[in-house]
Amino acid sequence: MQSSSSYPEAVEQLIAGFRRLPGVGARTAERLALAVLRWTPEELHDFGLLLATLPERVGECRVCGNLAEDDLCPVCRDPARDQSIICVVENADQVPVIERSGGHRGLYHVLGGRIVPLDGIGPEDLRIGELRARLDSGEVRELVLATGSDIEGEATATYLARELRRPGLAITRIATGIPVGADLAFADSATLATALNSRRPVG
Amino acid sequence: MQSSSSYPEAVEQLIAGFRRLPGVGARTAERLALAVLRWTPEELHDFGLLLATLPERVGECRVCGNLAEDDLCPVCRDPARDQSIICVVENADQVPVIERSGGHRGLYHVLGGRIVPLDGIGPEDLRIGELRARLDSGEVRELVLATGSDIEGEATATYLARELRRPGLAITRIATGIPVGADLAFADSATLATALNSRRPVG
Repeated sequence: MQSSSSYPEAVEQLIAGFRRLPGVGARTAERLALAVLRWTPEELHDFGLLLATLPERVGECRVCGNLAEDDLCPVCRDPARDQSIICVVENADQVPVIERSGGHRGLYHVLGGRIVPLDGIGPEDLRIGELRARLDSGEVRELVLATGSDIEGEATATYLARELRRPGLAITRIATGIPVGADLAFADSATLATALNSRRPVG
Repeated sequence: MQSSSSYPEAVEQLIAGFRRLPGVGARTAERLALAVLRWTPEELHDFGLLLATLPERVGECRVCGNLAEDDLCPVCRDPARDQSIICVVENADQVPVIERSGGHRGLYHVLGGRIVPLDGIGPEDLRIGELRARLDSGEVRELVLATGSDIEGEATATYLARELRRPGLAITRIATGIPVGADLAFADSATLATALNSRRPVG
């Protein structure tokens, strides 16, 4: 068994670059590198330039911390969004997921993480001061806490609910329960217990 | 269902770039783009520059047509390789696969495709003239035809065996048969028929 020493150095570097991506093993990285080698010089130039200039082009939205190319992210720049509801998420990755769901028409606030005391991450490390400042502006009527449904996510939500409580502001938490379309037989016990505890009257 | 309009333009372009890769769908492209956004500016710059300069850095080996950063590919540059055996493959992708198998210590010749009359690809479109020139040098004792085991690959091998035949040159074809470690129950009929026809005496 030999290593793939038959590749030129530039191709080895290309493979190594792809291997740094999540879920990409040695063989996939090789396949991606060989595919990229078939791109036209223009495609390679454009994509390469895009990567090289990403740090200058993409930063954080000044208001909500979401990914932004300018001062403001596309959501904060959109006047059609409901300015009275802010959905609080841990990371910018979660914004597009919620956007796709179509379940939120308000604004976002990206914390930049979650409170994990064991890792030395406290409230002061998250963008909570910025969130408080937005609430101070008085326009916001509801804060939807969409941090994770695991222990740290719950702890972060509990902390925020306690610290940000104020008259005229509803603080809500996204529901935990059985995924839509899922068979009960495949639900884990923790989810099922939560779903049973959070049962609602029907009919 | 909304599109992910919450991404800045540069991130959308990044996602579109990754989507052009084989086996990468919309969600995977998004995941890869978000992962890349966490790279350091140095990593992004280096990888971006590598992509942009690929066309200048990676070309074809002057002798065998394999991927090469200089005039010669790593295999042709290696004096330890057996100069008397040339393995003929369709594309440069196949060289590392054979290298990893450890079954070939000679040189390569990359045809740059296969003969497919229906697509208008004839022998003159492949690097056959270059192969003939290498045989004319007189050092080569064996030509191992490792084109694909499908109809076009077989036809290409048959063509080469007929056209390149000369005294003192053995022309061989890699074996077709049951994959090592495979259960007969999962072998397709064509492979099984070939394996039976190509049976060899044992003991």
